[in-house]
Amino acid sequence: MSGPTTEPLRLGIAGLGTVGAGVVKIVRQKSALLQDRAGRRIEISAVSARNRDKDRGVSLASYDWQDDPVALAQRDDVDVFVELVGGSDGPAKAAVEAALKAGKDVVTANKALLAHHGQALAELAEQNGAVLRFEAAVAGGIPVIKALTESLAGNDITRVMGVMNGTCNYILTRMESAGLSYAAAFAEADALGFLEADPELDVGGIDAGHKLALLASIAFGTQVAFSSVELEGIGRVSIDDIRQASDMGYKIKLLGVCRLTGRGLEQSMSPCLVPATSPLGQLDGGTNMVVIDGDQVGQIVMRGAGAGEGPTASAVMGDVMDIARGTRVTTFGAPASRLVAATPAQTATPAPYYLRMNLADKPGALAKVAAALGDAGVSIHRMRQYDHIDSAAPVLIVTHKTTRAALDQALEAIAGTGVVQDTPVALRIEAV
Amino acid sequence: MSGPTTEPLRLGIAGLGTVGAGVVKIVRQKSALLQDRAGRRIEISAVSARNRDKDRGVSLASYDWQDDPVALAQRDDVDVFVELVGGSDGPAKAAVEAALKAGKDVVTANKALLAHHGQALAELAEQNGAVLRFEAAVAGGIPVIKALTESLAGNDITRVMGVMNGTCNYILTRMESAGLSYAAAFAEADALGFLEADPELDVGGIDAGHKLALLASIAFGTQVAFSSVELEGIGRVSIDDIRQASDMGYKIKLLGVCRLTGRGLEQSMSPCLVPATSPLGQLDGGTNMVVIDGDQVGQIVMRGAGAGEGPTASAVMGDVMDIARGTRVTTFGAPASRLVAATPAQTATPAPYYLRMNLADKPGALAKVAAALGDAGVSIHRMRQYDHIDSAAPVLIVTHKTTRAALDQALEAIAGTGVVQDTPVALRIEAV
Repeated sequence: MSGPTTEPLRLGIAGLGTVGAGVVKIVRQKSALLQDRAGRRIEISAVSARNRDKDRGVSLASYDWQDDPVALAQRDDVDVFVELVGGSDGPAKAAVEAALKAGKDVVTANKALLAHHGQALAELAEQNGAVLRFEAAVAGGIPVIKALTESLAGNDITRVMGVMNGTCNYILTRMESAGLSYAAAFAEADALGFLEADPELDVGGIDAGHKLALLASIAFGTQVAFSSVELEGIGRVSIDDIRQASDMGYKIKLLGVCRLTGRGLEQSMSPCLVPATSPLGQLDGGTNMVVIDGDQVGQIVMRGAGAGEGPTASAVMGDVMDIARGTRVTTFGAPASRLVAATPAQTATPAPYYLRMNLADKPGALAKVAAALGDAGVSIHRMRQYDHIDSAAPVLIVTHKTTRAALDQALEAIAGTGVVQDTPVALRIEAV
Repeated sequence: MSGPTTEPLRLGIAGLGTVGAGVVKIVRQKSALLQDRAGRRIEISAVSARNRDKDRGVSLASYDWQDDPVALAQRDDVDVFVELVGGSDGPAKAAVEAALKAGKDVVTANKALLAHHGQALAELAEQNGAVLRFEAAVAGGIPVIKALTESLAGNDITRVMGVMNGTCNYILTRMESAGLSYAAAFAEADALGFLEADPELDVGGIDAGHKLALLASIAFGTQVAFSSVELEGIGRVSIDDIRQASDMGYKIKLLGVCRLTGRGLEQSMSPCLVPATSPLGQLDGGTNMVVIDGDQVGQIVMRGAGAGEGPTASAVMGDVMDIARGTRVTTFGAPASRLVAATPAQTATPAPYYLRMNLADKPGALAKVAAALGDAGVSIHRMRQYDHIDSAAPVLIVTHKTTRAALDQALEAIAGTGVVQDTPVALRIEAV
């Protein structure tokens, strides 16, 4: 056999925000270590960003500057195009496509790009003999893409769950630990700079939903299907819900869950209750966690920083080092042509649900709620009614396992009774 | 570039205990899935074990039987030799050497073999253009070898810790949860079949020490040095220690810790106190956990089953699938010739210690202990003395950070005072 190449691996890096600068620092400061491990030098040929003059805390003088990321991606002296521009379309997409068409390998941290165009990009990569890797796009420094794609390749994956948006977990943790309202915790996260320019990307679950769609594709051999992820943000979670959940031994997390069952592909990113003593329940603050269930391995839990310069740059460098060592793995763990377009499940796997609603001060109100649940086939596991406050009585219900469809039917019937104020809160309780 | 091969990858499997049988089942039952993911078929050419007639719950009729694992390793129709025989020498070593010399790739779950002969085998593999992988040897189904070798290749690793012997963690957990003595919990684990034929491999920390030595090599680019792992088993941990630790907010775990510092390579596998609310502190029962600190990634925690048919076979198959996809990574993450022979640290990084001793009923006894600690430069953070029982008074001390050398000097002086019965228990408190 011919030995592996010892020629330097030459990077072109587009996007020099904190992550891009972090990658440059690692390549500069760990040159000898990287060469020892990969058996060849890692070099940077050229870089690109919007603003050439910004101080990024690292010298860029020895690299060619290229204003246009597409031109950077096509340079003859670039073996790997590192895309850290961001955005599902625009320059990031154009440059990644240009790199792949030129047969260059691509490493990206861009979850939005892959969530929207993953299938087409995976096909383009394979047509051109290039690899497209994206460990940094999901759960920051946690090596979950590699674990699913490679380590667990001998498993049928039965479920992947994750807390993958540190900002949401920070807000929920602060609500609980400091007794803050959602609005106050949101404002605190905003003041700390934790929120995206469009906060709905965080608190609406969109960012975490992108990540879940990528994990589902690898886990189940399906084409990325972000548009069928059921998204529900954390904006309706109240401090009351958090306290009640806690009293019952649960925590509320913005939890991504995906499964492939006879009903189809389930993908949801929504506030869920998890047991307080489980690893997910114990996850406080901005940390991320991914839980993988496989038919052979049982349950694997991985925890780490989901964002930040070091963790994200670490993930980018893991992909770069794989390429330097000659590792050639398909984008989603199987050839793009073998990925199937899964039918979205019409209703999720049955689960117990937590319900909170405000009953009007009318005779027989609770009986009407109970009857509506019973008529829909939803049975009640626990129920608590509290004293009336301003003519409304909070009622908490934990159901036995039910389908979401049956629950929605019950909620519709409850709305029709006229005894409930506002829309009830309904959160799934996920077994871990 | 030439595309990857689509020829079947042919395995020869030596050792058909639960793990070997598990691997055969996966290859048979997931044939299509494996082919989709790897882009080629995974086949078994021949198998070997001591007893041909045993019922292993899976048909072996379509595979050649080979009594001699060395002959199996050298067959022309074997691309990958899967060694699940076990043992640091004897047939396992002979067969792995034969396979590597014949240029065959090797996948093994044999921690003892690699802990004792890892450097020589890594050199042999590289001389013959073969790869030698061993994910299943450390922490069962947890993909820690791959995470360290590949995902975190852009990091300087600052520490690796782990609970990597499920039997010991089971014993310690049962002592705490059921109030059992060490002897009673040991007997329970024995009755459940959790113990190795030589129980000292488990409770003496040897098995877990093998695993730690392998992780240290990858983390720090050092030659495997099992002989310099400081080993201390759990046999001296008493129910009193567990209760006292719990009162102070700690759990006692058989914890492996390795670091490379200016003092040299530290490797220890010993009972340690860890915060009860940390992921390690919350790890109950037979589950394993590895905690990796990297300068870029921060802290990564991985948790999963450390043993058993499915988890171990999952790890074996992860390595097999890597080879099927053409991945060629060096055994310990860097070429064997680049691994350095690290000097063992003479004394570990300073840490607080937990001490328990029985004071004789003599005037001034406690003062003598305190003086001995002070003279050695060990300062006391917390101290409790209890009522005398049978003329001895239990004393608990938590020190401030100290070196083990200073502590040992103090313990020697304390022994010289004649006021302490038996040998004091001294356990490190590891920050997490």
